[in-house]
Amino acid sequence: MRIACQQFAPEIAAFDVNRAASSQRIRAAVGQGAELVVLPELTTSGYVFSSREEAASVAIPVDHPLFAEWAAEIAEAPGGRGLVIGGFCELGASGALYNSAAVVSGEGLVAVYRKTHLWDREKLFFEPGSDPPPVIETVAGRIGVAICYDLEFPELTRSLALRGAELVAVPTNWPLVPRPGNEHPPEVVIAMAAARTNRMFIACCDRSGTERGQRWTQGTAIIDCDGWVIARADAGAAVADVELSRAREKRLTALADALGDRRPELYGDLVREIPWGG
Amino acid sequence: MRIACQQFAPEIAAFDVNRAASSQRIRAAVGQGAELVVLPELTTSGYVFSSREEAASVAIPVDHPLFAEWAAEIAEAPGGRGLVIGGFCELGASGALYNSAAVVSGEGLVAVYRKTHLWDREKLFFEPGSDPPPVIETVAGRIGVAICYDLEFPELTRSLALRGAELVAVPTNWPLVPRPGNEHPPEVVIAMAAARTNRMFIACCDRSGTERGQRWTQGTAIIDCDGWVIARADAGAAVADVELSRAREKRLTALADALGDRRPELYGDLVREIPWGG
Repeated sequence: MRIACQQFAPEIAAFDVNRAASSQRIRAAVGQGAELVVLPELTTSGYVFSSREEAASVAIPVDHPLFAEWAAEIAEAPGGRGLVIGGFCELGASGALYNSAAVVSGEGLVAVYRKTHLWDREKLFFEPGSDPPPVIETVAGRIGVAICYDLEFPELTRSLALRGAELVAVPTNWPLVPRPGNEHPPEVVIAMAAARTNRMFIACCDRSGTERGQRWTQGTAIIDCDGWVIARADAGAAVADVELSRAREKRLTALADALGDRRPELYGDLVREIPWGG
Repeated sequence: MRIACQQFAPEIAAFDVNRAASSQRIRAAVGQGAELVVLPELTTSGYVFSSREEAASVAIPVDHPLFAEWAAEIAEAPGGRGLVIGGFCELGASGALYNSAAVVSGEGLVAVYRKTHLWDREKLFFEPGSDPPPVIETVAGRIGVAICYDLEFPELTRSLALRGAELVAVPTNWPLVPRPGNEHPPEVVIAMAAARTNRMFIACCDRSGTERGQRWTQGTAIIDCDGWVIARADAGAAVADVELSRAREKRLTALADALGDRRPELYGDLVREIPWGG
């Protein structure tokens, strides 16, 4: 399966511009033979909203024609089995806003995931999702979804692996933070560890540009199931060919197994609402 | 608090040699002002046993005088508040063997942790521990323990953080595995991610040498609560001065909190005995 993460710069509060740009990026990826196209978080809206009203002005419901446009582009993917996973600003039926990711096949919208771990000021604009992320069964393998800050909760990536995800697609907007010069961005280190401890692939699609003074890490990375970065954004896209079935093998040696060696009876603290240190 | 991880090469099945070497390493670390001294996994026995009988021949009970010797050495630490955390091959009351870590203060043995995630052939020699690792309250801060492969279970490091650990000491024996030339050892990447996602320090003490053909990574690393490596083994020891209280701050921004933003109601899968993909 060829994966393309299309790192680009959505424009704040400019839905029509982003609508055209996102479809164009899917087309370009398909033109390079991609079957799985990952777009950044909040692709259709930009990120640094000045108010909830501004976010609402570019929010779209799940029956918006944008997804049919994405479907028409990805329908051209090799073998007719392409998938797009991209972030958008969702308008819920009740008027609530969500930081969501759409999963779109050549047939149309397959699933929507509403980010469950909201970062910082997102809490002022969005409601957190109440459902765990989907794991989509495809011909090429099982694909899970997470959005940006979700990745910093190892419980979430682990639970995706336990539910059979062989690859996790991660639309993201990573604000640039300090790091030692010889190191990966910290979010990439976290993704590498999640990939290795769970023996699954992770494809993170970051955004680029500077928005209202906010610089972005531009850290797009495709990580293999051994935990190593196999593609970074180069001229905007990170592209890699992967064999998802490798992620079905959780054995590390004849006597060790990354998931089978878990001790769930010792992990009860993780699902209780306890204050840390309590 | 000054931490010293004393990376050295225990000798297989040579208890007396290792007993002397371990005490000497504690003395050397204390001579450099260390208050927390971390020793490798199975410091007293070596690792590559040819049989369970060989492991049993160097196993010791928790009332063995070795721990009084370690206590006498660490009692000389600055302020009289030193702590040693080191691996040993434990002989249980019933004759069972455990891959254990001892926590020893100037007063004597404070706690024993029996490794709960046994790696590969360890399963042929050892029983897995049935209790979660301890978190020790000290004047300098709260210190948790894990052993080697335990670290590859993010549930374990997370649960230590939730129980208030500000630093996790990790006696380890990391077999050398392939990695890209510009990368940290994979176990260090995993420790970096655990340190950053939990906002806690992690001090891993690996071993050195080659034992019965097995090469070791020699990847000893002290990692700060931002997830960056601040000391590696240099002439056998990694030494760093850390302020453990930094790990009490879990806020990432005014509106984001590394532990407070968890969604425990979504993590139920982690504590159920389900086959992966099931």
